[in-house]
Parts: sequence; C-alpha cells; structure tokens
Amino acid sequence: MRTRPLKVALLGCGVVGSEVARIMTTHADDLTARIGAPVELAGVAVRRPDRVREGIAPELVTTDATALVKRGDIDVVVEVIGGIEPARTLITTAFEHGASVVSANKALLAQDGAALHAAADEHDKDLYYEAAVAGAIPLIRPLRESLAGDKINRVMGIVNGTTNFILDKMDSTGAGYQEALDEATALGYAEADPTADVEGFDAAAKAAILAGIAFHTRVRLDDVYREGMTEVTASDFASAKEMGCTIKLLAICERAADGGSVTARVHPAMIPLSHPLASVRGAYNAVFVESDAAGQLMFYGPGAGGSPTASAVLGDLVAVCRNRIGGATGPGESAYAALPVSPMGDVVTRYHISLDVADKPGVLAQVATVFAEHGVSIDTVRQSGKDGEASLVVVTHRASDAALTGTVEALRKLDTVRGVASIMRVEGE
Amino acid sequence: MRTRPLKVALLGCGVVGSEVARIMTTHADDLTARIGAPVELAGVAVRRPDRVREGIAPELVTTDATALVKRGDIDVVVEVIGGIEPARTLITTAFEHGASVVSANKALLAQDGAALHAAADEHDKDLYYEAAVAGAIPLIRPLRESLAGDKINRVMGIVNGTTNFILDKMDSTGAGYQEALDEATALGYAEADPTADVEGFDAAAKAAILAGIAFHTRVRLDDVYREGMTEVTASDFASAKEMGCTIKLLAICERAADGGSVTARVHPAMIPLSHPLASVRGAYNAVFVESDAAGQLMFYGPGAGGSPTASAVLGDLVAVCRNRIGGATGPGESAYAALPVSPMGDVVTRYHISLDVADKPGVLAQVATVFAEHGVSIDTVRQSGKDGEASLVVVTHRASDAALTGTVEALRKLDTVRGVASIMRVEGE
Repeated sequence: MRTRPLKVALLGCGVVGSEVARIMTTHADDLTARIGAPVELAGVAVRRPDRVREGIAPELVTTDATALVKRGDIDVVVEVIGGIEPARTLITTAFEHGASVVSANKALLAQDGAALHAAADEHDKDLYYEAAVAGAIPLIRPLRESLAGDKINRVMGIVNGTTNFILDKMDSTGAGYQEALDEATALGYAEADPTADVEGFDAAAKAAILAGIAFHTRVRLDDVYREGMTEVTASDFASAKEMGCTIKLLAICERAADGGSVTARVHPAMIPLSHPLASVRGAYNAVFVESDAAGQLMFYGPGAGGSPTASAVLGDLVAVCRNRIGGATGPGESAYAALPVSPMGDVVTRYHISLDVADKPGVLAQVATVFAEHGVSIDTVRQSGKDGEASLVVVTHRASDAALTGTVEALRKLDTVRGVASIMRVEGE
Repeated sequence: MRTRPLKVALLGCGVVGSEVARIMTTHADDLTARIGAPVELAGVAVRRPDRVREGIAPELVTTDATALVKRGDIDVVVEVIGGIEPARTLITTAFEHGASVVSANKALLAQDGAALHAAADEHDKDLYYEAAVAGAIPLIRPLRESLAGDKINRVMGIVNGTTNFILDKMDSTGAGYQEALDEATALGYAEADPTADVEGFDAAAKAAILAGIAFHTRVRLDDVYREGMTEVTASDFASAKEMGCTIKLLAICERAADGGSVTARVHPAMIPLSHPLASVRGAYNAVFVESDAAGQLMFYGPGAGGSPTASAVLGDLVAVCRNRIGGATGPGESAYAALPVSPMGDVVTRYHISLDVADKPGVLAQVATVFAEHGVSIDTVRQSGKDGEASLVVVTHRASDAALTGTVEALRKLDTVRGVASIMRVEGE
C-alpha cells in the first residue's frame, strides 16, 4: 500500500460538495483500503468563505478556485459547482496542471463534453461524471463499461425527480399541474424557479449525455428535442388511465430501425402501467435500457440530493484514484460511430390525440380520411358527445412525428374540428 | 490504435459460449473501436468437437483446453464451462501462462473466489465475472466500482429466474408448486433436474459473491443460509395476498445494525406488493441495494440465457482487453473489512406464522404468552375457525431467527397447537 496520500481539490461546497467532504472524512479508512492509498482533502474552493462548514478545516477553504487547480500537486479535482463557467475553465486548467477530474456537471458535459474529453485525453487524464446523470444510480459506468460488448438500441428514462414528483402527484391525487408544482416547491422538490426542470432542460442535458455514451456518437444539447410538462392536465391523466397508462416525462434516446442514425428527445408521454417505468414514484429516477444481447435492463434509484449525488462522485473518485496509482486512465470519450442525429420529424412512435369536434354524421369519416392521407394508421377511435359537441380520441399505430404533425395541421383546417385538445406520444410498448 | 490483435481463448461453446463467439464475429468492428485494438478468437475448447459450430472456423476447435490456456500467446481466457473442475485448474493455469480471465462461473467463484483472486494478483492479471451473478444485469461492476465510495448495508435480490418464474406463475394463476414447475420445465425455464434452482443452491452461490463484494469480506458458499422454495404452497400465496404481499425467493445479504458482522441467506419470503422487487415477473432478475449515501437502488433485467450472459461476458472482455493494452489491472478482490459472517440465528426480520389450533377459549392467550416469553413481539393476530378447529395467523415485529425458532419449538409443545402450518419471513419493509 502506498502511503503518500492522493490530494483532492473540491470545487464547490454546497449540498453535494459538503457531503463529499463529510464522507471523505468519516469513511477515510474505507476509502484508503479501497483505493490502496489515503486520500486527502487538499483544498475547498467556495464563493462564500464566511459560511461555517462543519468538519472542514478553515485553512483548506479558499475563494481562489483557479489557484487551487493550478497548484500542481492536486491529483483529482472534484467539480460540483455546476453551470458552464467558471466550471469549464477550471476543469481544463485542472487537466493542464496534472489533475484528473470528477464532475457532476450535466449542463457542461451536455454542451461541451467533446472538448472536455479532448482536453482530458491530451493530458492523459481521467474525466468521470457518473453523478451528472440520475444522481446515485450507476448508469454511466454500466452503459460505458458493462455494456461495452453489446449494442444499445434504446435508452428511455425518468431522469428528473422534480417532474416525476409532480406527475406522480397529479396521477395519484387528480391534482392539476399548478397544485402539484406548489406542493413540490413547498416540500423542497422544486426550486423557486422550476423552469430547468419543468421545461425539460435538465432532462435534455442528461439525454444528450446518455445518447452520446449509448451510441458512441457525439450528441449535443442542441440535438435533443425538448418539450416540457407544464401543459399536462388532469384530463390527460384521465385519458391515460382509460388506456391503462400513466404519464411520465421521458428522456428517450433511440437508434433508428436501420441503425444508420439516432434521435434524442424529452417530452411527456403515456406509458402502460405494466411498464417498469410506470411504477417509479415520487422523486425517484429510473432508466430503461434495451440492447441486442442483454435485452431489457432497468436502473432505479434516487436521482438527486446531496448524499446520493455524493455517492456517485465518490465512486468516481475511487476509480480515478485507482487509475492514477496504476498509472492508467479509464475509458475516455467513445464517439467513433459518429452517427447522424436525426431531427424530431424522423422519430417514429404512437400518438394519443383528443379532438373537439362537431357532433354530426360524417365527422369521423372526415377525420379518418385526414389520417389516412398522411399515412398515419389508426389503432383505436373513441367518440363521445352530446348537445352538438363531441370529442374524438384517436390512438394511432406507429408513425413518424413529421407525418403526425402534418395530420394535425390538416385536422385543424377541418370545419368540423373545433380544436385539438391534446396530443401525447405513447411509449413503452 | 494498436493493430496486433488481442487473442481470446474460449473455454466452452454451449449456449453462452457460442453466443460470445457469434458476437465477437458480428460486432468485430465495434469491439475493435471500443477496445482500441482488434480481438481475435484464437481457440475454442469443447468437449464434443464433432458438433457443428456455425461461424467458428473448425481449425480453432480443440478438445485440449489445457494446451489452449498454456499456449502463452493468449491474452484473455473466457471460461464458460461452469462447475468446479476442470474450470478451476484451467483458470489458474491461464494466469500462470500470462492470460487474464473472464468467467461466468458462479459456483466456482462462490467456493474458491479468494484463491482465484489470489492467483490473479500473483500474476498481475485480471479476473472479471459480471456474468456470474444475475446474467446481463450490470451488478458486480456497480457494486465494486460505482458504489466504491459508499457503504452498502443490504443487497436483496431475485437472482434465480427459474424460481421466480415458478413463484410468479403460482401467484398469478393460483397453481401449486408442482404444476408451476411442470410448466417451467415444459417452457425450458427449468432443467430436467431443477434441484440447483428450486433448492436455492444457485441463488446461494450468487449471494456469497454479492455479499463478498458488498461488504469487502470473504463470504463462502458455506456461510450462506439456504432454504429452497419447494414447500411454498398456494395457501401461502393466499396468506401473502391477505397481507398485501407476494412471495419471492430472495437472496439477502445484510450488514448487522452495529456494523460488526454480516449475514447472507436465501429463502422464500413475503414482500409487500409496493416493494420494487414484488413486480419482477417471469424469469427476470432484480437486485435491490441499500447504502448509506446512495439510498435505495435497484438493478433489473434478464438473469440468464445465452445472449444476456454473453453481453455481460463481452463487457468484461472489453474491460480486460483495455486494461491489458493500458498495462493495468482492474480492481481485484477487496476483502479488507474481514467482517465475521454471523449464523442464521442472528438474522433479525419479521415472520408470518400460521398455526392450526384447538378452537376453545384461552388458546390465543397461551400462544401470545409463548411469543412473549421468547421476546418475540406480535404485530397482528388473525383468528378464524369452526367445528372445534381454528387457525391462527401471527405476524411478528422484528425478532432474531433464534428467538423465532425457540418460539416455534415451544408452540409445538402446546397441547392446543395441533400443528405449525407454515412459517415465512416477511422482508422489504
């Protein structure tokens, strides 16, 4: 066993960072045994040095993160600041000064993953980021290593706990979106400004990272189609129930049937209650993976929070320290497949469409004709109505998003169609 | 990219081996890109060389496995023979002759894991065995690497697909054990001699491996308490339903509350329908992990079969090849904690006990006194009966297995207790 400790610089000491520091102290002996050398917290960069930080020696605390990563004696930089800058510059500076990096920064990795991996490679250092997707759930490592001999065809997951909490609440209590959001905010599951969660930005960043790893292809945040869940109504949940479904905000990364391209998207979707993702409750996350040889796998656990995220960070820290002692690096970016990322129009799935229509003979025939003209095959239609108004619920077979969009545009032009009440994709069948 | 191929020797070419060979051929380009060098199937050791093996060049096939692993130019030996010998000798011989090893052999690893790891270490080679537990489900790597910075307190899983198929069938159709077993046999889910599965030997081997990794402690097959599921009846399922539970054959590895010891056991148990493991259907496997920081995680997927097992083997193969190119080895055995493995009597859980009793006044008081005398606290009692015969269903609070055993022995001696119809542990609360 080597006795010179590995030096760790911690950038950020908020909910996650303070938990990382705490576990490094309380579990020091275990970490030493598992790594093969002691690890030492060599510095902690914070914005507000005056805040009391239990268990962290005051002399370790600095506001000068740049000086910390430039010290030259740091083995591993743990970045839990979040956001693009200064995190990006600090990480590349860390590589330049001889450190490997563990990051939990999904936004940065989704936007600049390729450049960061290139910087790591250039300096022969590790860049690990298990905590960036689905908190404590081991997901990056299984996709990147356990399934390295397999061909992944689909990754479909609930990767945002806030929105799952809200949707689960709507499902179980019949509450509307605003009411469920208010409860999530009161309980601390949603931030004061919930935009990043409810509009799907957070999930889209994770989708980009997952798609990149799953398909060995660079997928950037801009490549990910994104639709939030603020428009989901109690009435949508009622429709879902009638179909034996519930509604989840899903991040879906798929290889096209011909294998020649991939897609990545985030949107609310109906999934059958029998699907393993349907029973993911509260703020939990789960990711369903389909591959050629392994078949269907699911990974489930807490997707956020200080301790769970710290667990993932520390797992990476142990791996990076082991690599460093062994003079090796772990698997870097794998983007050799370089598949084109297709636009949303190419995505093929099923749809649930609710139309408000005039209650008179011939409407159904008109509507069915529009679907047929656009090559969208209908699975089921349900008609109900009274007093001259009616509603028509159409569930389609699989069709491209472009075909469905064309269909809906044409439906809106029909005199007998008063409005398109909702369109929701149906997944997981 | 290195161009000299890594040479792989395949020991065994049955359901798993032939699938490994097939994927190595069909996915050769992907494997090359992911490893950073081509991999070449350099030899295949089989027992019956005359069998036609599609896609495998006849000149690669040999019956002399020993000569193959001794060749000296083999980089990785993939052992998918199973059983103790000759697998054990072949693996140690492989290390001695410079090869790393990927194995799917749960029986061997549960019995001789420590010695095999020592042999790997001595020769500075890798020993990987993701496929040994829960087929395609990434489990060994997440436990060993992703959670390396966390403290695992419990691993509880459905790790045998055959028995889960049988129990699921009994649950969903009301069938008895024999009827469900017959169906499993007819469908190919159970072997002609199902002993290893239904008596829990297979699950016990996996429990030993999981406990060892989770607790950084050597746990051998002999340390695992084992009870099969052949005694589970349709009436047990009826009792479980009344409690809002189902019955699963579980492998449970636990750290004692004081942290000073561990236990590992396999037995049928009731679990609440709300528990994620309750909804694991058919021959699927799932493993629930609880740790200090990460909280509750679950890993789900196919636990057996040629393709899923081959997926796990190939993931290991890629990792071992990468290590070899980088001149490194992955994490070896981690048994530094060396915690004592406590006997079954020390296990603390809840119990569901069905008693056939005389239907007369005072019986409940007598029975309750026996529980109290043994320090087993009762949660609920349900009494039903007619014509002088009655049944009493007692559900306890948490108590040690030793205390429960003492209670049951004393109950059997009561004149008013005609028989103990069933005792089943209640887990997952």
